[in-house]
Amino acid sequence: MVTRVRYKAAEVNLQDAIRQRRSIRKYGEHRVKEAIVRRLLDLSRYAPSSMNGQPWHFVVVRHSATKKALVQIKNRHCPSKKKAYNADFLKDATIVVICVEKERSHGRAIENGVLAAAIFMLAAQECGLGTVYMSAQQKGKPALKKEISRLLRLPNSILPIAIIPFGYPAEVAQKKEMRELKEITHFEHF
Amino acid sequence: MVTRVRYKAAEVNLQDAIRQRRSIRKYGEHRVKEAIVRRLLDLSRYAPSSMNGQPWHFVVVRHSATKKALVQIKNRHCPSKKKAYNADFLKDATIVVICVEKERSHGRAIENGVLAAAIFMLAAQECGLGTVYMSAQQKGKPALKKEISRLLRLPNSILPIAIIPFGYPAEVAQKKEMRELKEITHFEHF
Repeated sequence: MVTRVRYKAAEVNLQDAIRQRRSIRKYGEHRVKEAIVRRLLDLSRYAPSSMNGQPWHFVVVRHSATKKALVQIKNRHCPSKKKAYNADFLKDATIVVICVEKERSHGRAIENGVLAAAIFMLAAQECGLGTVYMSAQQKGKPALKKEISRLLRLPNSILPIAIIPFGYPAEVAQKKEMRELKEITHFEHF
Repeated sequence: MVTRVRYKAAEVNLQDAIRQRRSIRKYGEHRVKEAIVRRLLDLSRYAPSSMNGQPWHFVVVRHSATKKALVQIKNRHCPSKKKAYNADFLKDATIVVICVEKERSHGRAIENGVLAAAIFMLAAQECGLGTVYMSAQQKGKPALKKEISRLLRLPNSILPIAIIPFGYPAEVAQKKEMRELKEITHFEHF
């Protein structure tokens, strides 16, 4: 299995990984091998970070009880306009919670966490895995991150930033309607 | 030139782009062709975004006067502990300022902006271009983003998130000492 994935990975170029990635919210039963999980985390730590602080910590969640608790936390804090995106599907995924050390983040906790999350998601795509970005932070509402921190036993020095479920997709993502590039590109000023 | 870059790009796999990327703060004189700039922006808009809002706007800066003004703004707001990372080198780069529409960001302005920035940086790496992540935001200090917004004539509905200089590297980045993966990986809880 690992051999097959390595072979596939060597063939996927970056452009295809970028263009083909879609947010996946339905996962199959096939378990992601631990070697693949480690490989994705290994790549994620090559993200840039403020003053090269490399502030990341990765908490991998597989246990059903922990996943259920995460679903409850995310659903409880889900704003009403985002209810269509409830978190129930987390129970079928492997999850990595991307955290950062405050001290090592140099005032850039969210940026540093998200940069690693983006790499994780592309690297997962290369392995045939689906992902979706979910946030562990709510501006002005510390309850979400506090409850996640308690669940994952994070010390006070560590902040959870992103929750990335991943696994073998059990859905074909819809074609995404894209905004026109010329509509969003500006030269010299807006 | 475009043909050569396309050929190179098809050969670079994602893993290599991730592992080989380094922050570059010294750029050569060779101008980045506009076709390459557009290609990088085209790929960046494939980033995930909250509720698929696709909130991005890209402002490409090439004019010397605008770059000098950006250098001054960034240096003026540079915290004393980051003085070693001053922004003077921006004058030698092409710059993209990645912005987001507030309305389309669904409370996730920074996350959405950074996800596109991460893709831009990897795609640039694939084309043999260096980049470095610089922030257009300072927590609790709106002056930085306000001055950037004024310079780039951003409407009030648009927030600048990241400043990404890019170009052909004129330095070989030092080998990066990496934290051990096992030191930062946790299973089920911290």
